[in-house]
Amino acid sequence: MRILLINPNTTAAMTDDMAMVAARTLPDVEIIGATAGHGVAAIDGYRDHVLAAAAVVEEMNAREGSFDGAILACFGEPGLDAARELTTVPVVGLAEASFVTAMLLGHRFSVLTTLDRGVPPIYDRLRHHGVESRCASVRATGLTVLEAHGDRSLALDALAREGRRAIDQDEAEVICLGCGGLLGLRAPLEERLKVPVIEAVPAAAALLQGLIINGLTTSKARAFQRPETGPVL
Amino acid sequence: MRILLINPNTTAAMTDDMAMVAARTLPDVEIIGATAGHGVAAIDGYRDHVLAAAAVVEEMNAREGSFDGAILACFGEPGLDAARELTTVPVVGLAEASFVTAMLLGHRFSVLTTLDRGVPPIYDRLRHHGVESRCASVRATGLTVLEAHGDRSLALDALAREGRRAIDQDEAEVICLGCGGLLGLRAPLEERLKVPVIEAVPAAAALLQGLIINGLTTSKARAFQRPETGPVL
Amino acid sequence: MRILLINPNTTAAMTDDMAMVAARTLPDVEIIGATAGHGVAAIDGYRDHVLAAAAVVEEMNAREGSFDGAILACFGEPGLDAARELTTVPVVGLAEASFVTAMLLGHRFSVLTTLDRGVPPIYDRLRHHGVESRCASVRATGLTVLEAHGDRSLALDALAREGRRAIDQDEAEVICLGCGGLLGLRAPLEERLKVPVIEAVPAAAALLQGLIINGLTTSKARAFQRPETGPVL
Amino acid sequence: MRILLINPNTTAAMTDDMAMVAARTLPDVEIIGATAGHGVAAIDGYRDHVLAAAAVVEEMNAREGSFDGAILACFGEPGLDAARELTTVPVVGLAEASFVTAMLLGHRFSVLTTLDRGVPPIYDRLRHHGVESRCASVRATGLTVLEAHGDRSLALDALAREGRRAIDQDEAEVICLGCGGLLGLRAPLEERLKVPVIEAVPAAAALLQGLIINGLTTSKARAFQRPETGPVL
Amino acid sequence: MRILLINPNTTAAMTDDMAMVAARTLPDVEIIGATAGHGVAAIDGYRDHVLAAAAVVEEMNAREGSFDGAILACFGEPGLDAARELTTVPVVGLAEASFVTAMLLGHRFSVLTTLDRGVPPIYDRLRHHGVESRCASVRATGLTVLEAHGDRSLALDALAREGRRAIDQDEAEVICLGCGGLLGLRAPLEERLKVPVIEAVPAAAALLQGLIINGLTTSKARAFQRPETGPVL
Amino acid sequence: MRILLINPNTTAAMTDDMAMVAARTLPDVEIIGATAGHGVAAIDGYRDHVLAAAAVVEEMNAREGSFDGAILACFGEPGLDAARELTTVPVVGLAEASFVTAMLLGHRFSVLTTLDRGVPPIYDRLRHHGVESRCASVRATGLTVLEAHGDRSLALDALAREGRRAIDQDEAEVICLGCGGLLGLRAPLEERLKVPVIEAVPAAAALLQGLIINGLTTSKARAFQRPETGPVL
Repeated sequence: MRILLINPNTTAAMTDDMAMVAARTLPDVEIIGATAGHGVAAIDGYRDHVLAAAAVVEEMNAREGSFDGAILACFGEPGLDAARELTTVPVVGLAEASFVTAMLLGHRFSVLTTLDRGVPPIYDRLRHHGVESRCASVRATGLTVLEAHGDRSLALDALAREGRRAIDQDEAEVICLGCGGLLGLRAPLEERLKVPVIEAVPAAAALLQGLIINGLTTSKARAFQRPETGPVL
Repeated sequence: MRILLINPNTTAAMTDDMAMVAARTLPDVEIIGATAGHGVAAIDGYRDHVLAAAAVVEEMNAREGSFDGAILACFGEPGLDAARELTTVPVVGLAEASFVTAMLLGHRFSVLTTLDRGVPPIYDRLRHHGVESRCASVRATGLTVLEAHGDRSLALDALAREGRRAIDQDEAEVICLGCGGLLGLRAPLEERLKVPVIEAVPAAAALLQGLIINGLTTSKARAFQRPETGPVL
Repeated sequence: MRILLINPNTTAAMTDDMAMVAARTLPDVEIIGATAGHGVAAIDGYRDHVLAAAAVVEEMNAREGSFDGAILACFGEPGLDAARELTTVPVVGLAEASFVTAMLLGHRFSVLTTLDRGVPPIYDRLRHHGVESRCASVRATGLTVLEAHGDRSLALDALAREGRRAIDQDEAEVICLGCGGLLGLRAPLEERLKVPVIEAVPAAAALLQGLIINGLTTSKARAFQRPETGPVL
Repeated sequence: MRILLINPNTTAAMTDDMAMVAARTLPDVEIIGATAGHGVAAIDGYRDHVLAAAAVVEEMNAREGSFDGAILACFGEPGLDAARELTTVPVVGLAEASFVTAMLLGHRFSVLTTLDRGVPPIYDRLRHHGVESRCASVRATGLTVLEAHGDRSLALDALAREGRRAIDQDEAEVICLGCGGLLGLRAPLEERLKVPVIEAVPAAAALLQGLIINGLTTSKARAFQRPETGPVL
Repeated sequence: MRILLINPNTTAAMTDDMAMVAARTLPDVEIIGATAGHGVAAIDGYRDHVLAAAAVVEEMNAREGSFDGAILACFGEPGLDAARELTTVPVVGLAEASFVTAMLLGHRFSVLTTLDRGVPPIYDRLRHHGVESRCASVRATGLTVLEAHGDRSLALDALAREGRRAIDQDEAEVICLGCGGLLGLRAPLEERLKVPVIEAVPAAAALLQGLIINGLTTSKARAFQRPETGPVL
Repeated sequence: MRILLINPNTTAAMTDDMAMVAARTLPDVEIIGATAGHGVAAIDGYRDHVLAAAAVVEEMNAREGSFDGAILACFGEPGLDAARELTTVPVVGLAEASFVTAMLLGHRFSVLTTLDRGVPPIYDRLRHHGVESRCASVRATGLTVLEAHGDRSLALDALAREGRRAIDQDEAEVICLGCGGLLGLRAPLEERLKVPVIEAVPAAAALLQGLIINGLTTSKARAFQRPETGPVL
């Protein structure tokens, strides 16, 4: 089984990290990391989302036929619907993977993200996927992605603080880490919060493997029909 | 890895069939089939649902500690929340498994079930899981479970007819077979309908394996705290 | 007119209390109290709910034909849909009775319950009955049912504190006491909070009498058709 | 116990009919019929609704203090919120009474009304009361109120035809007669449709009696505070 | 182009102020101010709303044919649907105008109003127009309309305080002034809050001009068909 | 006043047509047409949507500062949120413009589009803007954009047929033409259907002019903050 993990930003180190995490989740699967050929180093807002989506389309066009399923490895899921259109194999985005995984583990979940500006796009994803009634809250830690990466202890403290508020004030029972790059924090955070914490990449990897072993494919009935014209750029 | 598959009705042959399907989905996993010790031979309505839920509680109490995750192998999901309360390992029901799987493959899904009376309980599950906006329709074939099992060609025709209406009239892009016992019909139905068809047991098995390999557990924060008193009957 | 009041837990004293309250509400009606023949002394969580539902089915089967309507006397409403399936007379649960009564008296209502773990099941009921948009909040007092019964002054203080928050912070205009056993606290609580406070048993008794005098019955069209097989256990 | 039944249109004969029906429902209660002092003979659209609401306010002002509860005897419920503001006793409208009664008897209900133009205002009431998810459909018979009154056999046929469609096509389990003046048709319609049919006036009368015997009043916390100025016209 | 601005309260000075603001917004348009011929000096609650609606119907009847579009110049929108029924030209209410304008400028909006009792009627309007998911909160300043008019500095402080909370705590990105009479405060409030602030009258005037220049009219298909009887009072 | 009309596809003739229509709507406004510098000749599905969004970002970056407001002239609204992020002036998309305009004219609206595959993306827009409860249906005519342009009589017949069904079967009161390129069909369609028909470009132009004359800007509070890095490609 070969799974394509598309990192829609241009930071290859992040692709490698995420691919490694996916490979650890699925040791028998070949994980092919793909990094956006252009766009932005980190996706932070709607403009970046658009640039990232274009890179996703290019990767999907370039690599079609070489994999059994794809992970769109960004919580904002740029180009998710387009990716589904461009292939028959299953494609899983990080937000939907986190949401549906959380829904199997608790009554309501909260999502933790970096900056305030990242909150509305997550509400967009919740509404897009139709699961807003299962979400207790979306909370920002106030850290940038860079800060979160640079000082893990600081990141952990901020996530634990907002996670605690989500549990105590918003009635969350499960916490989703709303950023594909927040890797390796799940275990210490679970220890502090005492609720399941969902890291998006492993969640998506596991879901995708499940779809593949069941032979399930993306529906071509209506929304995700192939484009009528060939590859364009 | 050991997965408990609880059939909440008393028909051991159905347990065996479902366990075999789960084992085929997850060849490296040990599937432990458990059949309701009392209750009804087939779950058909709310009274049966209550009796089945009581049997599920008994099985969960009796077997706690012997498995890494559980499939509640009935589309009506009797006792699903109670099962979550009684364990820390993940538990997956057939309706939620089908719904979230369908949501990863198409824009909207329809559920096909047996008799008219089975339709409202499926709406209950859609609302309970908070995914009603992703459902295009719930349609009944008019066949009883027994008829569906007795004459597979008849069942296939009825499912194909209602599935076609779901796709053409209700705008479904994915079809869920809304009955745990409708096994082995997925392939011919996909061939006729040309959209992904989801068989509930394999979908649940794959999801559950994904939760287990990621070390995810049922949240004990609030809704699914263990009962304060010990096992009761 | 004869009304069956089913207490789904095994505490006969609570049955007696609730039956007495119902009788005071409807002095011309014969109230038949029925106590669960097995299960749990107090319903606290989903496991208990399942056990209680099984007891409700037994009572309904055993007593069918001997009453003109039934109160399912627990806010969690275990087995409510099954009870409707097993009879043609009307059946009223405590949660739905409280919700619809509150909806006639104010713009939005809040529900007060005992422990945190009791909150999610009340959200389940709100969603099940489709009235979640009318609910301002569900708040826990932090007291167990036993504590609430043991020290009424303590219970009153806790309810008044959370009720005040519901009114001031959550914009509730009506308060529902979300526990069938919290009897006799309505008057002092109304005095403190200056909003209508709904005690579930009298609300359900009054609603049920209304259905009976109008000759209304449970619909047998689809969801609540009688089981096709006879009584089973 | 004295109940005020306000007919918001100027047709005294309709007031008498509705008061008689209410009196038959509640034989021990004094029913005071009040007819709009001005406005329209039949309420048919939003303009009429406004004129009727003004008449309701006048009646409430003129009669305040002389009754224990009020029925706003029109399915459009003109002035319902204003009536609640002007009194402390409970007030029940015909639409909300029908909706909550139907919700206690079946999974979903449909409303039958007269002309196409009457359908959107009923959707307004469903949304206003927050119960739209419980409604299967609103269907018009195509008859005017006058036609419906003039030829009962014609009315019955039209209601039976649309009711059958509501049950078979829209999955309704209960039928609400969405017009206060459609009196006396419930029994023959139930016989034809084999599901509960709700006549609004008796439903409201029974609900209101229930609120009164429980000593429940309209909340004055926020929405329904008394006007700060005295009676105005 | 001639636009009718109907002030549903009897305070002609407020009509003049609002008409002047509308004229400043649309310098090439003739604004015809109309003041309610009877009713209340300020609309504060549901009773006042009913009285105001009746006055709106009278104005619409009296002036029909003399204008190209109408502004119903009150945030409570008394008689809005009736006004639409009585004309073919477009009619715009202050609440809907504010809501849809806000939706074009930010992710979610909050509404600021005067007293607590004014909050539920605004939720009613949000639900009536079907845009409740775009609203972050409705907040009261605690000032009466008179106080707000009498001391503008006090009003500004109160609005800035609640606006700040709406932005910081409720995640609002746009602020709607939920009272037609709060004129002239937009600029200083925008300066303090640093988000768009919507004054209802100019928003409605601009929307209405847009409908008129596009030749758009009120639909007569169903809900807003003309009354079948002529003018009535 | 200068308005930028961005056509996100590469067909300059369509830009010209739309700009001309906008100029006819707003004769005193300078309309600057901008055509996507790369991407697809017609936007038909999610892949095309992504490519178009990237072109929109480029146009916004290149032209920032030269206009007072922008129309994103495609019903799919590719890059709408990104465009808002990249400017402080108001930006209006064709879907939201059509939806909010329709909401001011009737109770519920339907959207007519070209092919079946175009239906789900319109549901996406309805949900994204939070107005799905006001939409009666989305219907496809079965014509491609090219066919619709090539044979206007054919297009008119197909639109009239589906519009009639929307009105009669789905209870629509207003029709939105769900494609920016369907220009010049509004008048004949209104004549046939007898309900308001909304052409998206004039609706957006009028709304945008309204925002500009009121000095309203895109909120920078949270979702639409400017990107922290400068222009990127």
